[in-house]
Amino acid sequence: MPLLGLLPRRAWAALLSQLLRPPCASCTGAVRCQSQVAEAVLTSQLKAHQEKPNFIIKIPKGTRDLSPQHMVVREKILDLVISCFKRHGAKGMDTPAFELKETLTEKYGEDSGLMYDLKDQGGELLSLRYDLTVPFARYLAMNKVKKMKRYHVGKVWRRESPSIVQGRYREFCQCDFDIAGQFDPMIPDAECLKIMCEILSGLQLGDFLIKMAWKDVRHEMVAKKGLAPEVADRIGDYVQCHGGVSLVEQMFQDPRLSQNKQALEGLEDLKLLFEYLNLFGIAEKISFDLSLARGLDYYTGVIYEAVLLQTPTQAGEEPLNVGSVAAGGRYDGLVGMFDPKGHKVPCVGLSIGVERIFYIVEQRMKTKGEKVRTTETQVFVATPQKNFLQERLKLITELWDAGIKAEMLYKNNPKLLTQLHYCESTGIPLVVIIGEQELKEGIIKIRSVASREEVAIKRENLVAEIQKRLSES
Amino acid sequence: MPLLGLLPRRAWAALLSQLLRPPCASCTGAVRCQSQVAEAVLTSQLKAHQEKPNFIIKIPKGTRDLSPQHMVVREKILDLVISCFKRHGAKGMDTPAFELKETLTEKYGEDSGLMYDLKDQGGELLSLRYDLTVPFARYLAMNKVKKMKRYHVGKVWRRESPSIVQGRYREFCQCDFDIAGQFDPMIPDAECLKIMCEILSGLQLGDFLIKMAWKDVRHEMVAKKGLAPEVADRIGDYVQCHGGVSLVEQMFQDPRLSQNKQALEGLEDLKLLFEYLNLFGIAEKISFDLSLARGLDYYTGVIYEAVLLQTPTQAGEEPLNVGSVAAGGRYDGLVGMFDPKGHKVPCVGLSIGVERIFYIVEQRMKTKGEKVRTTETQVFVATPQKNFLQERLKLITELWDAGIKAEMLYKNNPKLLTQLHYCESTGIPLVVIIGEQELKEGIIKIRSVASREEVAIKRENLVAEIQKRLSES
Repeated sequence: MPLLGLLPRRAWAALLSQLLRPPCASCTGAVRCQSQVAEAVLTSQLKAHQEKPNFIIKIPKGTRDLSPQHMVVREKILDLVISCFKRHGAKGMDTPAFELKETLTEKYGEDSGLMYDLKDQGGELLSLRYDLTVPFARYLAMNKVKKMKRYHVGKVWRRESPSIVQGRYREFCQCDFDIAGQFDPMIPDAECLKIMCEILSGLQLGDFLIKMAWKDVRHEMVAKKGLAPEVADRIGDYVQCHGGVSLVEQMFQDPRLSQNKQALEGLEDLKLLFEYLNLFGIAEKISFDLSLARGLDYYTGVIYEAVLLQTPTQAGEEPLNVGSVAAGGRYDGLVGMFDPKGHKVPCVGLSIGVERIFYIVEQRMKTKGEKVRTTETQVFVATPQKNFLQERLKLITELWDAGIKAEMLYKNNPKLLTQLHYCESTGIPLVVIIGEQELKEGIIKIRSVASREEVAIKRENLVAEIQKRLSES
Repeated sequence: MPLLGLLPRRAWAALLSQLLRPPCASCTGAVRCQSQVAEAVLTSQLKAHQEKPNFIIKIPKGTRDLSPQHMVVREKILDLVISCFKRHGAKGMDTPAFELKETLTEKYGEDSGLMYDLKDQGGELLSLRYDLTVPFARYLAMNKVKKMKRYHVGKVWRRESPSIVQGRYREFCQCDFDIAGQFDPMIPDAECLKIMCEILSGLQLGDFLIKMAWKDVRHEMVAKKGLAPEVADRIGDYVQCHGGVSLVEQMFQDPRLSQNKQALEGLEDLKLLFEYLNLFGIAEKISFDLSLARGLDYYTGVIYEAVLLQTPTQAGEEPLNVGSVAAGGRYDGLVGMFDPKGHKVPCVGLSIGVERIFYIVEQRMKTKGEKVRTTETQVFVATPQKNFLQERLKLITELWDAGIKAEMLYKNNPKLLTQLHYCESTGIPLVVIIGEQELKEGIIKIRSVASREEVAIKRENLVAEIQKRLSES
C-alpha cells in the first residue's frame, strides 16, 4: 500500500524516537523510548477496532443527507427564491438555530408538531427553532425595530412523525419574506401575494392557486370556546362558495354583513386587497375561501396558502401528492408579545415550503431522465505521457490563478483514456493536453470533449484562449 | 389607529356572528352568539398581556443574530470561499444539524469543547454537530463512497465559554473542503494548502503564514502514555527551528534521522510535498514547524494552520487579536471508524474559520467607515402627487415582471421628498417618477439619485431604458 499520510503514525513515532535520543544516548534509553512509542501507537490503532462490533451507522429519524445531486437542485431553487425576495427590496438576516424555550412556547398552538428541546445548558432551557417567524418577531422586539422588510433562509426543526415519501422531514429548510411596520392597509399584504405568484410561476411547477382566508375562527370557537358545533356549522353553508371580487360583491349584497359596521370595514379591506391584486395582475390566481382553516396561533388577520393544481400525470410519472407549497399571513400581535410594554409591530409575510418543491422538481427530473452536473469544472488538465505531473501542476496553477475552474487526476502517471473518460462522465467541456511534443514546441493542445476536436495553441496564450472559449460557450 | 390586518379579530368575530345568525333568528340567539364571541375574543386578547411582566427577552449564551449589515459582509466572504472550492472541482453537500450522539463521541479528544446534547427524542440520543468533518466521514462510510471531493458550508455548535470580543461564538459557521480517496502521495495535501492560500490572499486579510506539522505526538505521549516529560521535552530543543525545504534538507543531514528507514520515508514525503508547493507557487507561504501542537483527535498525518501576521495597527484601528483563521490536515483513520469492517478511506481537508474572518473584515470596514448597502434595489417608483398609488403599482409591476429590483413606499400619498430621501439613505440609484403631467403625455421621468438629473422618456420604453442604464452602470 502506498504511503498516504505525510507519514503513518508508526513512522512518525520512530522518527520521534530518533529525535529523542541524545547524541550520546545509552542504547537502553533509546530502546526504552522506542518500545514505549511502539506500544502507544499500537493501542491507539486497536482502539478504533474495539468500538466496531456493536456500532450501527445511521442518521437521526426524519433527517437526511443532501447529496451533491440534491444540492444542485436545491441551489437552483433557492437562487430563484432569494433573487425574487431581493427584487422586492428585502434585506437578509439570520438568527441562531436555537432560542430560549420560553421564546417559542405558546406561539404555535396545540395542533403544531413537537419542538426539539436541548438538554439543560448550564441553566439555559433551549429549543431548536420551529419556524423563522417567531425568531424574527423576537429580533424586532429585542432591537426595537419598528419597520423592516427582510428575508431569511434557514433550517427549522419539527418533531412531526415524518412521512418522507411526501417530502416531509423533521429538519427542513424554509424561505421566509416578511414586511414589518405600520403602513397603509393591504399594500404589503398584496405584495406578499405577488411574491408568492412570482416564485411559483418562476419555478414552473405547473398551475397553482392561492387560497386566502382569515385565521380559523370557527375552530377556535368550537374547540376552545365550546360553541355548539351545530351553530358553528351553519357557517359551512355560507363558506362553500369561494372566489374573487365576485364573492366580495356578493357579500356586500348580504344585509347580514352590509348592515354591520365592522363587517363592512372588513369587506372594504377585502375589496381594496383585490383591487391591488388586479393591478399586480394576479387577481385570478387568488381565491377567497372562507373554508380554509389553517394557520398557526400567531396569525391575526388574512392568511393564505398556495396549492399546486393536480396536473394530469405524464407517462411514467407517479402521481404527485400535491399540497400546500407556500403559506403566510398577517400576525399583528406577535412582536407585542415580546415587548415588555406590549408595543405592537404589525407584520405580514410568507414562507416557501422548499422541501415539498425540491421533491416535486426532483421527481420531474427523474421522469425526464435529466442529468445534472454536480461540479462546475471548466477545464481538465491531461497528459498522454508518463512523468508529466510537474507540467500538469504548473499548468493547472496558471488556470486556477486566472480564476478558471480546473481539475486533474491525483496520479503521477494516469492513462489518457482514463482522463478523457473522467471529463465525459463529469461533463467537463474542455481538456488541456501537454506531452513531450507540446513541451518541445512550446504549445498546448485544447480539446473539446463534445466534438473531440483538438487545436494547438502557443503555451503563453493558454489562459486567454481558454477564457475566450468559455465566454463564447 | 388605522386598520392594519385584513380585519382585527374583534371585527371578524362580529362579522362571523352576523353569518351565524339565521335569516329568521330570534334576537336572543343573536345576542347569545355575539356575547360568547366577544368573550372569546376578550380572553384571547388578555392572554398575551398576562405573560408580559416576568418575560425577559434575550437569546442563548454565545449566540448572536446576524443583522442585514452582517449578512452583506458574510455573503461576500462566503461567495469568495465557495467560488474557490468550486474552482477546484468540489461538489456541494449537506448533512443534518444533529447526529446520533454515538456518531460524534470519541472523535475530538478531551481538550475539545462540550457538545450540545438534545433531550431524548423517543429513544434517540442526539447531539448538534461539532464540526463538518465527522459527519462527512459518517456520510462516506454510510454510502460506501470511496472517492469524493466536496465542500460543505454550515453551522456547527460548541459549548466553549465564549469570548465574543475575539469573534468566538458557540454557534458558528464553517467552510470545509475535503478530498477523500486513495491517491498518489501528497498531491491532494498540496492542493488543500493551495486552496488555503488562494482564499486568504483573495480575502485580502494582509500577510499570512501557514504552519505545517504532524499531529501532536508529544502531547499524546506525555498526557496519555505517561512518558517522562523531561524526556519528551528534549524534542523541544530540536523543534524550535522551522522553515521550508531548507529545514527538510537540514533533517536529511541529521544521521539520527537519515539512518532510520521510516524517518527517511517521512522526509521523502516532506520533500515531495514542498516540491508540489513550489510548483503551486506557495512554498514560501508554508512553514514546517515541529512545535505546532494542535489538531483534533482524528488527525493522523500532516496538520496545518493558517495564521495572519500582525499588521501594524492603522490609525484608530484597535489591534486585532490575530490568530488561526484556517486549519486542516489528514485523517486517514476516521472513515474506518464508521465502517463495520473498518475499511479505511484516506482523507485530507481544510476548514475556514469564517467567524474570525468576519470579525476582522468588519473591524476594517468600521475603521474605514465603509458603508454597505443592505438591499440591491435598482429602481424606486415615486410620485409627486396624491392619488397615484394605482399608477405606482402598475409601474412597479412592470419592473418586477421584467426582473428589475424595485421598491416603493407603502403609502397612499407619500411626500416626494420622503421618497427621494429614502433613495438616498438606502443607496437606490434610479427613481422613476409619474404624476399628472407624465400620465397626460404618456411619459415617465427617470431621475439619477447621484446626479439628480431627470430625463423624460416614453412610457412604453420604460423597461428597455432602465435595463440599458443598469447594464451601463
